[in-house]
Amino acid sequence: MVGQADFARSMRRALELATNGPATGVNPQVGCVILDAAGATLAEGWHRGAGTPHAEVDALAKVPNGKAPGATAIVTLEPCNHTGRTGPCAQALIDAGIARVVYAIADPGGVSAGGGERLRRAGVEVHAGLLAAEAEALLSDWLTTTHRGRPFVTLKWASSLDGRAAASDGTSQWITGPNARADVHRRRAASDAILVGTGTVLADDPSLTARDPDGTLLPSQPVPVVIGARPIPTDAAVRSHPHEPLFVDGTDLTALVRDLWARGFRRVFIEGGPTLASAFVEAGLVDEYVIYLAPTLLGGPRAALVDIGVGTIVEQRRLTLTRVEQIGTDLLVVAHPEIAPNATPGTLDASTDETPTNAKTPAQTRN
Amino acid sequence: MVGQADFARSMRRALELATNGPATGVNPQVGCVILDAAGATLAEGWHRGAGTPHAEVDALAKVPNGKAPGATAIVTLEPCNHTGRTGPCAQALIDAGIARVVYAIADPGGVSAGGGERLRRAGVEVHAGLLAAEAEALLSDWLTTTHRGRPFVTLKWASSLDGRAAASDGTSQWITGPNARADVHRRRAASDAILVGTGTVLADDPSLTARDPDGTLLPSQPVPVVIGARPIPTDAAVRSHPHEPLFVDGTDLTALVRDLWARGFRRVFIEGGPTLASAFVEAGLVDEYVIYLAPTLLGGPRAALVDIGVGTIVEQRRLTLTRVEQIGTDLLVVAHPEIAPNATPGTLDASTDETPTNAKTPAQTRN
Repeated sequence: MVGQADFARSMRRALELATNGPATGVNPQVGCVILDAAGATLAEGWHRGAGTPHAEVDALAKVPNGKAPGATAIVTLEPCNHTGRTGPCAQALIDAGIARVVYAIADPGGVSAGGGERLRRAGVEVHAGLLAAEAEALLSDWLTTTHRGRPFVTLKWASSLDGRAAASDGTSQWITGPNARADVHRRRAASDAILVGTGTVLADDPSLTARDPDGTLLPSQPVPVVIGARPIPTDAAVRSHPHEPLFVDGTDLTALVRDLWARGFRRVFIEGGPTLASAFVEAGLVDEYVIYLAPTLLGGPRAALVDIGVGTIVEQRRLTLTRVEQIGTDLLVVAHPEIAPNATPGTLDASTDETPTNAKTPAQTRN
Repeated sequence: MVGQADFARSMRRALELATNGPATGVNPQVGCVILDAAGATLAEGWHRGAGTPHAEVDALAKVPNGKAPGATAIVTLEPCNHTGRTGPCAQALIDAGIARVVYAIADPGGVSAGGGERLRRAGVEVHAGLLAAEAEALLSDWLTTTHRGRPFVTLKWASSLDGRAAASDGTSQWITGPNARADVHRRRAASDAILVGTGTVLADDPSLTARDPDGTLLPSQPVPVVIGARPIPTDAAVRSHPHEPLFVDGTDLTALVRDLWARGFRRVFIEGGPTLASAFVEAGLVDEYVIYLAPTLLGGPRAALVDIGVGTIVEQRRLTLTRVEQIGTDLLVVAHPEIAPNATPGTLDASTDETPTNAKTPAQTRN
């Protein structure tokens, strides 16, 4: 007879399955396991990204004929109640005759929420909250951005131990070593977009691709977003990027990140330069800092951050260190703000059920 | 019958004994164990600092009457051959009738060297090099300064992750936390002198004492050395320091460190501000960097280092990380220059036997 121990074991498996899906993009990573009345696994599924079947539907499709009625579905996120590119999973589970649904965390709101309630009304036994902390950890970035109505923003810089990103004449190749640089490319590949200021494009002509150490393009490439008013030459390397670059005005960063969210970008990676980086810090729009500190000293005028609006010590921007490790000969410091960063004004809160008024796609909908 | 295993065991013990002595000051930490013919310990000794008996003499004084003749002395550093404030240890060992001397590392030169040769000529069996690496590690700072004819120079600063030592208006209390600040005071107490620029004294009026977190003075206090041309008010806190401060011109830092060496300072601790710190970096006179990085961002103009003479990236000052640890919520990074820092021109090399021409006391002599 299927019971609590089966649920917990299967939820752990579902969390594992979830990680098969992409961590970037609009949709969350979700896994699902379907058990028969004896607790044996009938099928497993996971979500492979926007436009593909949700985890529950993926799993249901693999259940042997006639075995779904009376079965238990274990799923890491509340089944959706929304018809987007796919139909509502709650209804698919009801239609298949699933008798019991166990999920870890509730859908954070918006038009996709309410699946649990739909299931209950259809007479399905529903249990919520199993291994919720584990599921929240897995989906923390997705949940954060879904609550805030803007992408999860990572700001990266590389500097000397004294905080300089370049020598006085602007040269900076190389401050950090090959291992740190490879780590940057992996993080680029795990992002939907890479943001740079026009100053950096004009000064360094970066390709903004995510590459292997041998120069091969990684399978996943972030869309380059070039921010600022200055024109970019027609032969700039960024124009040869596999994705067509976006050129956007950076006068209102809050509007900018909201627009990036509306375009479907869920993880963005800011690579500088110092002016753009500092503007994001000052605007309170950075969720994660990824700082490579090279064991070297440069002095001089070219700091990795310039002015961030801190006039006196009580205004300092306190961070919490998440991770400190040696990477090659460099130090990698990952940190997040001690006080939660800003949402974008006027966007959805998790507790509401509105559709964002200003977004091209429903911002918080899994579709 | 005493043999190699006894020698190694006793050398380990002698290295332990050595650490009972002070790590600061003119003289090295040295330990000595005296064994009888069966390998049993007759006596142990160590050096308690300048003006007190050397480790060998300390140990010999504890050997039971009549037991020294034929005994073996295990000592971490070659017995000295010099009459300073104490007589030569080599002669004391000969006079006591010691039959065999085993030492780890040779005296690095100068007027105190040659003890091994004197012992040999007197018919004592001499073995050099046992656990040499361990003894070198113990004495590395002392050996370094003895080779260079200047104190071991530690440069400390505390900054935000973006390299700022203060907010735009100059406020800096507090960037680092109490644990980091306590660590600074311990390091002050382990130094012979604490160096600051007049700018820092005028701006912050620091007491430059080494204190417990509750404000109590630690037993050992570094001498404050105030560097620069600007006059310091008669009521400055530094003038109430337990040691009378030295006020010195900072126009020639090489001459300055050579003078500090001549005055008997062997470990100096530079606490800033940024101008003085940068001048020491640029002059290549820093042996060790102790950097506290607080998880905070400040931006703005007040960098912990200013210009250090690096115009282009190939001139960067590469460091090697010795230690990275979390201390409270801050990061402590200890590093040393990848390329050995500058000696002071015209001072002794370890391979020579000259007396320094310009020092008030023989610079490399243990006395």
